[in-house]
Amino acid sequence: MGTFITLITDFGLADGYVGALKGVIYSLNPEATIVDISHTIQPQNIRQAAFVLSTVYPYFPSYTVHLIVVDPGVGTNRRAIILKTPRAHFVAPDNGVLSYVLEDWTVERLSGSQRVKVAGDVSAYVITRSEYWRKPVSDTFHGRDIFAPVAARLSLGLMAISLGDKVDTLTAFVVPHPIRTAGGLIGHVQHIDSFGNLITDIRKPDLPPDQSEAIIIFKGRSIHGLSNAYGAGVGPLALFGSSGFLEIAVAGGSAEDYFQAEAGDEVTVNSKSGA
Amino acid sequence: MGTFITLITDFGLADGYVGALKGVIYSLNPEATIVDISHTIQPQNIRQAAFVLSTVYPYFPSYTVHLIVVDPGVGTNRRAIILKTPRAHFVAPDNGVLSYVLEDWTVERLSGSQRVKVAGDVSAYVITRSEYWRKPVSDTFHGRDIFAPVAARLSLGLMAISLGDKVDTLTAFVVPHPIRTAGGLIGHVQHIDSFGNLITDIRKPDLPPDQSEAIIIFKGRSIHGLSNAYGAGVGPLALFGSSGFLEIAVAGGSAEDYFQAEAGDEVTVNSKSGA
Amino acid sequence: MGTFITLITDFGLADGYVGALKGVIYSLNPEATIVDISHTIQPQNIRQAAFVLSTVYPYFPSYTVHLIVVDPGVGTNRRAIILKTPRAHFVAPDNGVLSYVLEDWTVERLSGSQRVKVAGDVSAYVITRSEYWRKPVSDTFHGRDIFAPVAARLSLGLMAISLGDKVDTLTAFVVPHPIRTAGGLIGHVQHIDSFGNLITDIRKPDLPPDQSEAIIIFKGRSIHGLSNAYGAGVGPLALFGSSGFLEIAVAGGSAEDYFQAEAGDEVTVNSKSGA
Repeated sequence: MGTFITLITDFGLADGYVGALKGVIYSLNPEATIVDISHTIQPQNIRQAAFVLSTVYPYFPSYTVHLIVVDPGVGTNRRAIILKTPRAHFVAPDNGVLSYVLEDWTVERLSGSQRVKVAGDVSAYVITRSEYWRKPVSDTFHGRDIFAPVAARLSLGLMAISLGDKVDTLTAFVVPHPIRTAGGLIGHVQHIDSFGNLITDIRKPDLPPDQSEAIIIFKGRSIHGLSNAYGAGVGPLALFGSSGFLEIAVAGGSAEDYFQAEAGDEVTVNSKSGA
Repeated sequence: MGTFITLITDFGLADGYVGALKGVIYSLNPEATIVDISHTIQPQNIRQAAFVLSTVYPYFPSYTVHLIVVDPGVGTNRRAIILKTPRAHFVAPDNGVLSYVLEDWTVERLSGSQRVKVAGDVSAYVITRSEYWRKPVSDTFHGRDIFAPVAARLSLGLMAISLGDKVDTLTAFVVPHPIRTAGGLIGHVQHIDSFGNLITDIRKPDLPPDQSEAIIIFKGRSIHGLSNAYGAGVGPLALFGSSGFLEIAVAGGSAEDYFQAEAGDEVTVNSKSGA
Repeated sequence: MGTFITLITDFGLADGYVGALKGVIYSLNPEATIVDISHTIQPQNIRQAAFVLSTVYPYFPSYTVHLIVVDPGVGTNRRAIILKTPRAHFVAPDNGVLSYVLEDWTVERLSGSQRVKVAGDVSAYVITRSEYWRKPVSDTFHGRDIFAPVAARLSLGLMAISLGDKVDTLTAFVVPHPIRTAGGLIGHVQHIDSFGNLITDIRKPDLPPDQSEAIIIFKGRSIHGLSNAYGAGVGPLALFGSSGFLEIAVAGGSAEDYFQAEAGDEVTVNSKSGA
């Protein structure tokens, strides 16, 4: 029960930062199973960390604690938070890194803002109870001195409410979604994986039922119809990937290199039958 | 008993693919000890993964499950397999990634083919029993949805035969071996490690007993005799490395850079006494 | 008790070296918790490994075994050692990789040398008892065949004295310290982390109490006063980092790139009040 702690950071693999964080966790909970998700998030890339988290957390056992330390605002007045869902705890800075997780729950966006209201099955807490932190607290490494001890104590069964104060709103950027047009959809590359696959924000239900008709247009090039496998055919292809999003790939190669693609690039899907 | 699961993939370290795979394993077997071998195999480089596996698996406890997901054919009709040896299970796509392991056992090559017959102390199974998989199965991520659940169930003690159907032959590329010539041997660089050491396919018994006489010729340059240590002397040297193969190294540097070497390059060994 | 084993190596993440080492440890102590600190120490960079170790070991539980294999002299006559402190064991080649740890204890430098005398609360042992090693011992991979088995046995409770012979002196380079001048201090960049932060050898007590007066001069550029956070302001800034050293950083960027900095570069601190 509750002994899994996953880690997502931008600390890199050469320094001692990840090790120090693990040492602090094991010192408080020697029975914890710590699982590295990624420590090579691009420095301070909150959106990348948010996306990676979204592709991983649904697969973990109940009561897992997910610790995310991508924290450009460390030492400033950004808040440190706990998000509690029925199956997991998330410990992170309140900087949008939980945006995808929050979208998976019924949250209400405060109009025109980067904030959402948390209610129903999920609850949120600002981490305030300093008696549970490591002392002295470094201004530059809350991961080691605040987040890690808090994650360890949650894994030991301490309640979130004991570690902070309940709050109603959290920071969340607007997760990208495709825009419906007369002839089809305009979507966006939201993540590029290490194979160079371009993961868009388009999901299966966004397309018309007869997907053999779909024409995917990216950087002036058309891809006709969908494939089932990265290894199907030659050259550029489109398929639905393991997180449910439409991906543009190149058989045996990198679509990132082939198309000189970047996160944010537009992808158009047209359909004869009219999407 | 049987709680170790090792991982070799080409998923890289920045995305959530490895994390998702671990989440699935832990959800089925929370007591498993997952051991990362490498996730930075070059994308789809089956030979590299096969070599790395060969240098690692003999050192693990009995009943370890080795999971290898370097799978360019995912979603096509390539088979997913389990290889059972007296000390371990291997779960992998049937694409040659177990070639070195299979060579360690008495297997018979089907003439002129990329296939071997499995018999005796080892047995092989095609993974077919979909009731043990994660649903829905993504066409692009059998690692998460088929291989990981199968590895987890083997680690829990389920028999391979319960997970699939026994088969007689598996895919295996021909593992490189040196060729004996009038004056000595012609071998090949089969792997370049991250220090830039060039690991050949030449083993100690391939050389004449008096190895002080050996002259190693690589890219037009001669190395006289063998060293005992990477730090012995200056410049290029040859020595038998930790996996039993002759290596070409450069003291305090990288032989890969020094020689502009690549996997597949020829290495000649001559000997006054005649090899 | 004593089941944590941390690893620092320069083996990289693509090969099987780390995996083989873990296999050997788990074969001897299946209950060990192995914690990766870093495997991407620059090849043979003893000073980098020594620094990383110093930022990590204080945070681990009592009786942790720290295994460090950055070993350019493997196979030569360098010694393999165990250092025992009241809270931990360190297993490493005797090449200076424990220099920072040794400085944390009362050790006496042998005048004008790279050696220190070990006494008091700490003790040192040369690893000699080959009956506890893996056989045959590879000349090129003592990590797998000597260090890993020794670390595993320490984690099982075997005494250091059973594994080797007590010695009085160990190799230790002189850890960098700032030099006091008429107007302030001259320090040095001792480590550059993966964010590009420049970690100097200057600690808080080295500066005058009123640090708002401090002027940090690096590569001809002046930084006035200290910040509390990496995200404070724009451009270059100076602050005390998580290991207690003065760091030069660039808000939202890399000081390494900005200043084209290298380890060893001089940093001057002046103060109106006179340091």
